[in-house]
Amino acid sequence: MDAIRRLFHPRSIAVLGASSDASKLAGRPVAYLRRHGFAGQIYPINPRYKELAGLPCYPDVSSLPEPPDVALILLASDRVADATRQLAQAGASAAIVLAGGFGETGAEGRRRQQALKDAAGAMRLLGPNTIGLVNVTDRIMLSASGAMELEEFPAGQIAVVSQSGGILGSLLSRGAARGIGFSKLVATGNEADIEVSDCLEYLLDDDATAVIALYLEALRAPQRFRAVATRAAAIGKPIVAFKVGRSEVGVRSAVSHTGALAGVDAIYDALFRQVGVTRAATFADLLDIPAAFAQKRPMRGRRVAIVTSTGGAATLVADSIGAAGFEVPAPDADTARTLLALNIPDAVLDRNPIDVTLAGLRLELLRTVIDTLLASASFDAVIVIVGSSGIGQPDLVSRPLIEALRNSDKPLLAYVSPDAPSIVRHLNRQGAPAFSAPESCASALAALSRAETRCVSSVAADHVQATVDWQTGLPDRGRLNEAQSKQLFARFGIPSVDEVIVQSSVEAARAAARIGGNVVLKILSRDILHKTEVGGVIVDVVPGDVARRCDELDATVRSRTGHSPDGFLVQELIRDGVELILGCRRDPQLGPAVLLGAGGITTELFKDAAIRLLPLGAGDADDMINELRSAPLLRGFRGRPLCDVGALAQAILTFSAMVSTLGERLIEAEINPLFVLPQGRGVRAADGLVVLRSTDGA
Amino acid sequence: MDAIRRLFHPRSIAVLGASSDASKLAGRPVAYLRRHGFAGQIYPINPRYKELAGLPCYPDVSSLPEPPDVALILLASDRVADATRQLAQAGASAAIVLAGGFGETGAEGRRRQQALKDAAGAMRLLGPNTIGLVNVTDRIMLSASGAMELEEFPAGQIAVVSQSGGILGSLLSRGAARGIGFSKLVATGNEADIEVSDCLEYLLDDDATAVIALYLEALRAPQRFRAVATRAAAIGKPIVAFKVGRSEVGVRSAVSHTGALAGVDAIYDALFRQVGVTRAATFADLLDIPAAFAQKRPMRGRRVAIVTSTGGAATLVADSIGAAGFEVPAPDADTARTLLALNIPDAVLDRNPIDVTLAGLRLELLRTVIDTLLASASFDAVIVIVGSSGIGQPDLVSRPLIEALRNSDKPLLAYVSPDAPSIVRHLNRQGAPAFSAPESCASALAALSRAETRCVSSVAADHVQATVDWQTGLPDRGRLNEAQSKQLFARFGIPSVDEVIVQSSVEAARAAARIGGNVVLKILSRDILHKTEVGGVIVDVVPGDVARRCDELDATVRSRTGHSPDGFLVQELIRDGVELILGCRRDPQLGPAVLLGAGGITTELFKDAAIRLLPLGAGDADDMINELRSAPLLRGFRGRPLCDVGALAQAILTFSAMVSTLGERLIEAEINPLFVLPQGRGVRAADGLVVLRSTDGA
Repeated sequence: MDAIRRLFHPRSIAVLGASSDASKLAGRPVAYLRRHGFAGQIYPINPRYKELAGLPCYPDVSSLPEPPDVALILLASDRVADATRQLAQAGASAAIVLAGGFGETGAEGRRRQQALKDAAGAMRLLGPNTIGLVNVTDRIMLSASGAMELEEFPAGQIAVVSQSGGILGSLLSRGAARGIGFSKLVATGNEADIEVSDCLEYLLDDDATAVIALYLEALRAPQRFRAVATRAAAIGKPIVAFKVGRSEVGVRSAVSHTGALAGVDAIYDALFRQVGVTRAATFADLLDIPAAFAQKRPMRGRRVAIVTSTGGAATLVADSIGAAGFEVPAPDADTARTLLALNIPDAVLDRNPIDVTLAGLRLELLRTVIDTLLASASFDAVIVIVGSSGIGQPDLVSRPLIEALRNSDKPLLAYVSPDAPSIVRHLNRQGAPAFSAPESCASALAALSRAETRCVSSVAADHVQATVDWQTGLPDRGRLNEAQSKQLFARFGIPSVDEVIVQSSVEAARAAARIGGNVVLKILSRDILHKTEVGGVIVDVVPGDVARRCDELDATVRSRTGHSPDGFLVQELIRDGVELILGCRRDPQLGPAVLLGAGGITTELFKDAAIRLLPLGAGDADDMINELRSAPLLRGFRGRPLCDVGALAQAILTFSAMVSTLGERLIEAEINPLFVLPQGRGVRAADGLVVLRSTDGA
Repeated sequence: MDAIRRLFHPRSIAVLGASSDASKLAGRPVAYLRRHGFAGQIYPINPRYKELAGLPCYPDVSSLPEPPDVALILLASDRVADATRQLAQAGASAAIVLAGGFGETGAEGRRRQQALKDAAGAMRLLGPNTIGLVNVTDRIMLSASGAMELEEFPAGQIAVVSQSGGILGSLLSRGAARGIGFSKLVATGNEADIEVSDCLEYLLDDDATAVIALYLEALRAPQRFRAVATRAAAIGKPIVAFKVGRSEVGVRSAVSHTGALAGVDAIYDALFRQVGVTRAATFADLLDIPAAFAQKRPMRGRRVAIVTSTGGAATLVADSIGAAGFEVPAPDADTARTLLALNIPDAVLDRNPIDVTLAGLRLELLRTVIDTLLASASFDAVIVIVGSSGIGQPDLVSRPLIEALRNSDKPLLAYVSPDAPSIVRHLNRQGAPAFSAPESCASALAALSRAETRCVSSVAADHVQATVDWQTGLPDRGRLNEAQSKQLFARFGIPSVDEVIVQSSVEAARAAARIGGNVVLKILSRDILHKTEVGGVIVDVVPGDVARRCDELDATVRSRTGHSPDGFLVQELIRDGVELILGCRRDPQLGPAVLLGAGGITTELFKDAAIRLLPLGAGDADDMINELRSAPLLRGFRGRPLCDVGALAQAILTFSAMVSTLGERLIEAEINPLFVLPQGRGVRAADGLVVLRSTDGA
């Protein structure tokens, strides 16, 4: 049994700096442990007491009768490192450091945090700057936080891993109020040692946990996260993540909060997609979506029945889930017949939402309607609208839903229209996810539905690296010119447009004649970054004009830049391809990523781009293509030819392999434009840019 | 005093079908009126009783001692029309019909609703299918709904107008739970007579109402709404609307709910923009944004200070408001100095969020920090994060905020991190809007900010209609061909590309020589709808090729369609313009609208279009242009020329005037593409389509 598992399941707990006053912060941990019936050994440590809350109290770590499994350190930040060292020496398995004043406070704090880490040695460390952890399943509270002062501690199947203690407390409080039950709660704080992925890894094996809610400010070990999350997807344990840092403001705030550097938000989005993590769009979703997952009912299609006795709220929910792409079809003839046979007065049973009017108060009848809809082949899920009439009797109005749960494995959700916390609580506790926002119904269903259809592919190993002699004849550092860049791409297997490098206008005319048809003329230069902007590109030159236009090009560029071109490129003119951009981005935290964008100005104006972290999984290239809003252009949009999408997918994988192979040597690489030709004719790199770092890092 | 005002402020109320059993639905209205201390006359009407709840009970309308100001009709739907007729004859001012079973149930119901309306004559009618109305300010409840069974009825400055009674109840319940106070509540139901705009009009003059929350399924009188909402903007009384029907599913559900036809959602969006109505994006926003408006504090910029004693929640809020475009800058030097002088231990005062750590519990200190930030020239609003520590003492933790309200007129909001309904309630009641979702902070601030910067322009009267002889020489019905369509546009003042209509290839060559440069060749046809798809357009023809290509065109089109072209168009080729689409849409409910879209396939792929209802306001044309995501193309994007945006705005107004002038005669009109040329050179219609209805409607 490893140290992390031991941390969640300690047999013995030392509390360093425990106070005998349970009303004080330092008095809480022992009080919490005893109140919730911790069955193992509790070792309060405080030289001021002989005894504490009826337990023997020890003056220091060395006087403990055995090495504790876990030590909860309540000491001030300047005393923490010493205590940690003593615990490590004594053979404790893990320590939890609550104090702040470490990495989150700047350079001095970072030094103090490193010293703390050094002091811990092989002993695992949670924190510093954490509120600790709670094993709700086994009622073990390792925390001094006032947020744990709950009348009822709701046990359930949702684990929460949070990089913020305050947010963990907020989620616990909100969950408890709504009857949402938790299995394990852990705040990782500054993550000097144990970080989110350590906790995720343990939770994947924790049978009491069905779903994991994750509050993230920044991943410190993204590759590890990727591996763990991929495993979560493989074993079907959903992870729902809320990640701050969607705005510059949020990024800065997160940095000052836990001292972690955040990556670019779009790359986090990509990462979550690649590993099948559901990203919560709102903070409320971070509880609502896990609550729906915890029901463990598969959403096999997109057809939803809405049952109501109040028109307005049903319309609201129908509109919200409709906007999220769900269907709300009328019952099929068989189902309608069964419903009509119930003879419900005034009820509207042949459309959807299905309005049972006042019969919604006759609970047996409502139960039959719900059963019928769950059994119907027309529906993949049922939402029951709870109105205001039963507000004083949560147990009673919840009963038809809860009983109906038994007879079907389809998702059965409730929307509670009035403010009725007791109904929400009752329903959630009994296993029927209950929502107070119509938008939550939509996001919960959307998450369930995606989880059914998504297949997280493992990394396509053969594309990770390529054994290619890519270097011969190319500069070993700095910016490659266009021809060299495309030569590099071609060595990995991405073909370029037909082109000839020439040094004079006479050669240019000869090359154009060989290529045939109208051509593109470009200057070749390592010095000039933006060819087009200095007049260094002429498109669509008729063969007879090539020599003259080439001389023009030379003169224009010289006069505008003062540089002589290194030569000229004569290229075939592509008329029937779709223009894209294929490039890479390197995030300092998350690593290299590949980007596919709509060509020309579209990427910039409409932000039409798809991004994925390397290495790519097998399905990622196709996913990227489909993610583009301009993807229809590749697929015969409005009479256009079908494009060679297969070759494009291959080019994405090839480009990614190139990026991986070049590794740290590659500073920048982009093919722009990459033409995708009609079906069967492949792709062509028409321009490109590569910047290399030399082997000595220059 | 008009009948609607009388409806909200009745001196006497008849209750038709009142029951003596207060536990029954029909017993509630009299009980509600008396419980809340209605000071006027109550006339229960029921032939079964002589007396009801201590009041004389009347057998019928004719035996009443005076015509009642308002009658609340609790009778079943088949008895409603007769009662209504008697009330009208007796001289009642208004009646409220609660029963359903009218327009919302289909053809038979619609007939019954018309009969009801006829029976009412000049008497005003609220409903049918409504839960009634409540004048909270004066504690007058005209309803039988169980949703009104509240322990405390929260009075405040927010009026709610809802087309759904269920939603009204839901808002009331949710508002009450959160301490949000209401002035007037009204459900308009099927709107046989009184519709939302009647209520809005009254509320604009109601001093007790500071802001109006509107729940809409469909507007029955959009022009009237436009006028009333424009007046609301002029007098500075905000309207916040939540509109269902964002999805087809929602539209269908709304139709079946109140029998109203919904317009296209994008046109509602346009309408709300044009009249300065804030559209609530989520159902929660429909309370949260009005709560912020009710504080009546102007948001004069975008700089927000966040004060916290808990890091995580502050980061969450900073990230949310940052994503909504707000700034969270560090305090300026003066402000930082003042804060530092407070000597708060461990506090981080020189960045933002401003973390006062445990000093947040020392309320005097927190109050001073809030005061300092409100007084600082660096900030336009302050958000205070309320953590879990004061959860048991709502009064105490709220005090610093509430006291700080006095010294500043900047918006001061609270985000409550744990589930703490009592704190939220207390803060809202005391005038500090308190939110439980970080996203609500963002949407509330965004609404406040928009309200400060938005200027709702009145209709530009001179562009509404034009006196133009547009008809001479054009077909009087059906589809105009391209040349005729552009002739029509030109008569209103939108110029076309230089073009010549020809009948033969010889004429075409001559025309091309006259136009000069390469040209575009097109067939001219009233029969062929999609010229391009049948090979009827050739772009970029060199002058020497024109005759030959024209013969080719003719042959191609004949062979593909079996139709002979009516002739050919020889057009100048525009190379340096930006391509747009300018067209009109006619929504069956909302009326004609004009649409400006990015050209080519961009409109369709990226939905890059702006739409406005006619008639346009003075600023609408510019707003439409700026709303396009591709607008930068017109403004010198990446070295392109500046385009003639002034001429484009004028063309939008001109096109709108054309649509208004043609009125019902116009079935369809579109300029596609409309080229916007470089600055000073105007716009050119390069292709167009017009379909007319004849004067006899054929």
